[in-house]
Amino acid sequence: MKTLVPEEPDWLQHRVTRIDDAEDDRLAPYRNVRERDLVGREGRFIAEGKVVLNVMLSNPAFAVESLLILENRLAGLTQQLKLCPPDVPIYCVSREVMDAIAGFPMHRGILAVGGRNAPHSIDALIDGMPDKALAVVLCGISNHDNMGSIFRNAAAFEADCIFMDETSCDPLYRKAIRVSVGAALKVPFAREGSIETIVAKLQTAGFDIFALSPAGITDIYDAKPSRRVALLLGTEGEGLPKLLLEKLKTVKIPMSGSFDSLNVATASGIALSRFSRFSGL
Amino acid sequence: MKTLVPEEPDWLQHRVTRIDDAEDDRLAPYRNVRERDLVGREGRFIAEGKVVLNVMLSNPAFAVESLLILENRLAGLTQQLKLCPPDVPIYCVSREVMDAIAGFPMHRGILAVGGRNAPHSIDALIDGMPDKALAVVLCGISNHDNMGSIFRNAAAFEADCIFMDETSCDPLYRKAIRVSVGAALKVPFAREGSIETIVAKLQTAGFDIFALSPAGITDIYDAKPSRRVALLLGTEGEGLPKLLLEKLKTVKIPMSGSFDSLNVATASGIALSRFSRFSGL
Repeated sequence: MKTLVPEEPDWLQHRVTRIDDAEDDRLAPYRNVRERDLVGREGRFIAEGKVVLNVMLSNPAFAVESLLILENRLAGLTQQLKLCPPDVPIYCVSREVMDAIAGFPMHRGILAVGGRNAPHSIDALIDGMPDKALAVVLCGISNHDNMGSIFRNAAAFEADCIFMDETSCDPLYRKAIRVSVGAALKVPFAREGSIETIVAKLQTAGFDIFALSPAGITDIYDAKPSRRVALLLGTEGEGLPKLLLEKLKTVKIPMSGSFDSLNVATASGIALSRFSRFSGL
Repeated sequence: MKTLVPEEPDWLQHRVTRIDDAEDDRLAPYRNVRERDLVGREGRFIAEGKVVLNVMLSNPAFAVESLLILENRLAGLTQQLKLCPPDVPIYCVSREVMDAIAGFPMHRGILAVGGRNAPHSIDALIDGMPDKALAVVLCGISNHDNMGSIFRNAAAFEADCIFMDETSCDPLYRKAIRVSVGAALKVPFAREGSIETIVAKLQTAGFDIFALSPAGITDIYDAKPSRRVALLLGTEGEGLPKLLLEKLKTVKIPMSGSFDSLNVATASGIALSRFSRFSGL
């Protein structure tokens, strides 16, 4: 094996496998990361960046399959790479090879392939929830940035889990994981069924559901939370289905009447901050 | 002029100038929008999308120089285009010409060039502020998404203005305007000088400055706002300068100790919601 860069300790040089051919089969899972739908079909996800790598490697629940690191990023990752199980290959490539594999300029230079755990069912997640609980429920969230931000907020305010209907996008898509700074790998979630099914199951389990809407009846700062709260958020454009809103307690974040409503991820942060155990309620 | 699409009313067909040559000089301001720094140098900005166009055309303070609309978007914009002053050219192009001019696939298909107004000075903005006021102060915010989101939140909670130091990025950059859903064109801002200068001037003007920090001393839900509040936010990575934090009241958003802090834009939303006049304080 050829020497990588002079600053690298000996162990790292021996731990890492250098690959100079972008066509090498071992790199197949990383090919065309942006276009490819690794999701579901292959039971894997792609993670990128140092922060997310930290989360993956410090959480034994995730089966890390391999890492792909740009040669000049190795030296800054010694701490992380020490945590990498010895049977997980660490591939190292040049900038040219990295960009050729990824299919676009991959500035971060840190990628990993992980195996997905079996998805949670709504029922299993509800069964495992504590007596005092805070859940987030998402309806039709199709933007990966928003999905990632909502997970980040849920982790920051220690929501117990996130339920989302089948029309919501996949939180384990690369960009959603990145924006979540790894929270998509930490906060338990279920993504199945219709929003009506999720709401019905949560109500049966004793959750008080607060549907966030710019036209909500109660100010979130006046709403009295019970022991089990579920915050329901819909898309920014269409909002939550009218029929559903009519059957639920609706809450609003008090704000200017003359401006477009808040971004849904920001709204989730404000509502989570208000209803989390950290707010002193 | 040739007929555009059958659904267009007569007036629109006569109002719009079709251009079939991507090299046409009238399209020069739109060339390579992504790479070019239209900012400052030419005293202009580029806006994109229907929501932002609405804001521009309904606010006479902005000198709209021209619009560039994809042919198949015209029919959905009749309301907006009626508001467009008669001396402002509305150019219409095919998908091919649009992408060739922009330099990348321009999905939204709605662009406008506006003239920048003279920038506000810190002093002028402070002089114009009401007795009871809420300001946002930004230090080193270099990400255009975050900048845009902070403006959106400031508009939603009716902050009076935003001050930012000279190391913060330009809120009138195309992407920041888009993410702000036009708020970057509405909320008055000053971008000049060091953060120390801004803070000193606000203190002289009687502002109580709350510096947001994960290590802040006071919980934002316990902080007592005075009549003039300025919320100071720094970058996510480095946070606010230590020397500055030592001299100011620091506040924190109460959250999990085991997770990466919030995104700065989300933090701005939570703090603005807490300190805005809508919170009932």
